[in-house]
Amino acid sequence: MMMRTLLLSLLFACLFFTSCTQKQQGEAETSVPLREKPNIVILFCDDMGYGDLGVYGHPTIKTPNLDRMAGEGMRFTQFYSGSPACSASRYSLLTGRYPIRSGFGWVLYPDGPKGMHPEEYTLAEGLKDAGYKTGMFGKWHLGNLHEYLPVQHGFDEYLGLPYSNDMIPPKFPDIALFQNNDTLELNPDQTKLTKMYTERAVNFIKGNKKDPFFLYLPYAMPHVPLMPGKDFQGKSMRGKYGDVVEEIDWSVGQILETLQQEGLAENTLVFFTSDNGPWIIKDIEGGSAGLFRDGKGSTWEGGMREPAIAWWPGTIKKGSVCAEVASTLDLYVSALQLAKQEIPTDRAVDGKSIVSLLKQSGEASVEQPYFYYGMNNYLYAVRKGAWKLHIHTYSQTGKQYFEGKLPLLFNIEEDPSEKYDLSEQYPEKIAELQKEIDAHEQKLESESSFFAKAENTGEQTKE
Amino acid sequence: MMMRTLLLSLLFACLFFTSCTQKQQGEAETSVPLREKPNIVILFCDDMGYGDLGVYGHPTIKTPNLDRMAGEGMRFTQFYSGSPACSASRYSLLTGRYPIRSGFGWVLYPDGPKGMHPEEYTLAEGLKDAGYKTGMFGKWHLGNLHEYLPVQHGFDEYLGLPYSNDMIPPKFPDIALFQNNDTLELNPDQTKLTKMYTERAVNFIKGNKKDPFFLYLPYAMPHVPLMPGKDFQGKSMRGKYGDVVEEIDWSVGQILETLQQEGLAENTLVFFTSDNGPWIIKDIEGGSAGLFRDGKGSTWEGGMREPAIAWWPGTIKKGSVCAEVASTLDLYVSALQLAKQEIPTDRAVDGKSIVSLLKQSGEASVEQPYFYYGMNNYLYAVRKGAWKLHIHTYSQTGKQYFEGKLPLLFNIEEDPSEKYDLSEQYPEKIAELQKEIDAHEQKLESESSFFAKAENTGEQTKE
Repeated sequence: MMMRTLLLSLLFACLFFTSCTQKQQGEAETSVPLREKPNIVILFCDDMGYGDLGVYGHPTIKTPNLDRMAGEGMRFTQFYSGSPACSASRYSLLTGRYPIRSGFGWVLYPDGPKGMHPEEYTLAEGLKDAGYKTGMFGKWHLGNLHEYLPVQHGFDEYLGLPYSNDMIPPKFPDIALFQNNDTLELNPDQTKLTKMYTERAVNFIKGNKKDPFFLYLPYAMPHVPLMPGKDFQGKSMRGKYGDVVEEIDWSVGQILETLQQEGLAENTLVFFTSDNGPWIIKDIEGGSAGLFRDGKGSTWEGGMREPAIAWWPGTIKKGSVCAEVASTLDLYVSALQLAKQEIPTDRAVDGKSIVSLLKQSGEASVEQPYFYYGMNNYLYAVRKGAWKLHIHTYSQTGKQYFEGKLPLLFNIEEDPSEKYDLSEQYPEKIAELQKEIDAHEQKLESESSFFAKAENTGEQTKE
Repeated sequence: MMMRTLLLSLLFACLFFTSCTQKQQGEAETSVPLREKPNIVILFCDDMGYGDLGVYGHPTIKTPNLDRMAGEGMRFTQFYSGSPACSASRYSLLTGRYPIRSGFGWVLYPDGPKGMHPEEYTLAEGLKDAGYKTGMFGKWHLGNLHEYLPVQHGFDEYLGLPYSNDMIPPKFPDIALFQNNDTLELNPDQTKLTKMYTERAVNFIKGNKKDPFFLYLPYAMPHVPLMPGKDFQGKSMRGKYGDVVEEIDWSVGQILETLQQEGLAENTLVFFTSDNGPWIIKDIEGGSAGLFRDGKGSTWEGGMREPAIAWWPGTIKKGSVCAEVASTLDLYVSALQLAKQEIPTDRAVDGKSIVSLLKQSGEASVEQPYFYYGMNNYLYAVRKGAWKLHIHTYSQTGKQYFEGKLPLLFNIEEDPSEKYDLSEQYPEKIAELQKEIDAHEQKLESESSFFAKAENTGEQTKE
C-alpha cells in the first residue's frame, strides 16, 4: 500500500511536470496574471536607418538582442516615422498628429523660443490620466524652455538632453543634462549617455511594478557625434556607428531582461523604432536605409521608413512579420486604446489603432492614406496601398533624382527603391492620390478645433 | 500486484515521455540516431540578390520558410558566390575551385561546344565515392553536350534544364528538359518548373532514407523570364519577382518538412544560397542587393554577396548569425569533409572548410584572402579581413563609379556599400593586398597539376 501510494505520488508529480513542460513549449508562458492595462515601453533611436539592424539585413552590425526581440515578437516592414526630421517626428509620436499641426517648425534649435504647445495632449498625459506612472530617459527636442519640458508634458520623471547631441559648444551654448526641470550637469560626457539612460530605465521598471507604467527611452544616438560607451568602443565591425548601435542593442537587451526577471513581460508592450532615416550626408558616420532611396530630411522612403519591432510575449505572435502600413502616429492611438483611455475628441488625431495588427486578430486594417510631411512640415507625398505620389521632393545630398520631374508616381510595394516612375502610365492613380491630398487639405482647413493646422511660426531650417 | 505493475508501467512511460519532452526543448531533438555521414542538400537560386529575402530585410517579399530556416539555423552575412555569373559560379560550387581553373569561359551558350571538363572531380563524384546517392533537379549550365551533362559528372539522377531559362526560342534553339541523358520534353512550361523540381526532390529524399544522399536543387529562377507557378501568380506584393521568390520559399518549406517528417532532419545539412547577385539591368524584373553596390556581372559586392542559410537541427545552433567570410567554394570542401571523403590532392582546391563555423566549435577561421573572379574569369578584386582591393571594375549598367579610378580600396566591414575609397589613406593596405594577388597568381602559374590555370578558350561574353 505504501508502495502504491508512493508510485501514485510519483506518477502525479511526473504528470504535473510533463504538463508544465508542455506549457513552456507553447506560445504563451504566463508567469503573472494578465492586467487590464499593459505597460507601454517605447525605445526610440535617433537617425537609425532601415538597414542598420541584423534582423533588417545589415551584414556587420551585430544586434542579437533586437534580433531576438523580433524573433519573439513582430517585425514591421512598412512602418513610418511621422517626419524625416527630429522635432517634428517626436511631436507626431507623442501626439498622434501630423507635424503640420505642431506650429513650432521642423527642427528646434537651442536658442529658439518655441516648443510643443502646452495644450497638446501627449501620450504621457493620456497614459497618466489612465493611471500610469510615466518616465522618460533620453532626448526630448520639443522645446527647452521650462514650459515645454517633459515634466510639463505628462512625464513624472525625466532625465536627458533637451535636444540633439550635436547642438553643443563651441557652435552652440552649453547643453544641459536635465533631471526633471533642473540642470544636473552641463555638457555631460556623451559616452555615458546610453548606459545612464538604460540604468535609469531599469530602475524605473523595478520601482513601478504595481501600477502600470509608460517608459519612453529616446536614445541620443546613432545621431552624430557617435559616442559609444567604453565597453563598446572599437568593438563592432562597422566602426563607431556600429559601436553605438551595438550599445543600443545591449540596452534593449537590458530592458527586455529586466521585464522578464520582474515577471512583467506578458504585461508589457515594448516597441522599438527610430525618429527618422539615416543621416547619409554624414558619410561613414551615417547609417544605411538598406534598399531604400535617400535618408534623413527626405520624404523618399529612406527618410521615413524605419525598423520597427513590437514585443509582448503571450500576446504578439512569435516571429511574425507585418507588412501593413503603420506609423509612429498609430502608436499614440494604440497605446491609449490599450490603456482604455479615450482618444481626445477636441482636436484632430491622425493615427489609427494597430492593436488588432499586434494581436493578429485577423482584422484587415483600414486602408487609409499616409501623408509624408517633409521639410518645414510641408506636405511632400502621399501613399495609399502600394501607390506613392510625390508632389515635392528634397534631398540633403542635393541630388535631383529624375531630374526634378514632378509629380512622381511609384508602386512602392513592387518597387520599394522608388526606381521606376509610373506617372505617365497611370494618370488615374495620380488623380486618385491627388484627391486624397485635396480631401486631407480641406479637412485641415475645415477643422476649427485646437491646432487644426497651426501656423509654421517656428524655426525654418534645411536640416 | 496487477495494479502495482500497471502503475510502474505508467510511471516509466511517463518518465520516458517527460524525458523526450525535455529533450525537445533543448538544442538537439534527435529522433533518429546520428549517422556517421550527414545528408547534404544544396538549394541554389539563380540571380537572387542579398536583399531579396524577408530575413535579409526585404520589405514586401514574404519568405516565412526561409525566415524559419534562418531562425532554426545559421544565417551568413559575408558569404560569396564563386563568380558574378552563372556557369562560372556553378563550376566553383561543384569543384571548390576558382573560375579561372575551368577553362570553359564565363557563361555558356546553347550553341557552344564547351562544358566542365570530364576530369573535374565534382562534389557529386566525391560524395558518390563516399557512398552517397546523388540527385540533381534543376539548372545545370556546365555544358549541354552529352559528355558534360550531370550524369557524366557524378549525379545518379537528373531532371532539369541544361542552361538558363532565357536561352530559349526564338533567339535560341529549342531548350530540352532533360531526364538523365534523355530529352523528356522540348520548351517545357516554365511555370511548372519550380513545382516539378520540388516534387522530384521530395521523392528523391523519400526514396533514399537508408543511404546518405546528396541533393542538389538549383532553381531556374528568379532568373528572367519570371514564371511563377499558377498558385503563386499575382500573389506577392513584389510583382512577378516576388511571386517567383515566394514559390521558391514554398519549395524550401517542402524540403525541410519532408526531412522532418521522414526523421532525417538531424542527419541532414541543408544549405541555401544563390549563384550570383540580382540582374539589376532587368529593372523591375531584377532583384535587389540590399545595401550593396551593383549586381550580377559585377565584382562590386552586389554581384557576389549572397543570402546564405545553413540548417542542421541539433548540430547548428538555432538563430545564429555568422559574419565570417565564406563562399560556395567552401561548401565543396566542407561537404566532402562531412562525408569523410578525401579532398583531391592531384589538383588545386581553393575552398576551405567551414565545418567548425557551422558547428560553432569556437575555432577561429583562418583568415585567408578571397579572390573575386569577374568578367571572363579574370581576377578583378581581392578581399582579406575587412579590406577589399579592386584592380578592375565592371558594371553591366555601364556606370563608372569613382570615375573609373583604379585601384580602389574599401573597408567593407565598416563601409559595406563601397562608398568611401581609402586608397590614398592606406597605401600600405594596397601593397599588402597586391602581395596576396601576386602570391595567388604565382601559385596559379606554378601549379603543374590538372587545370591549374586553364586557358579561357570558351565563350567570352559581356553577360
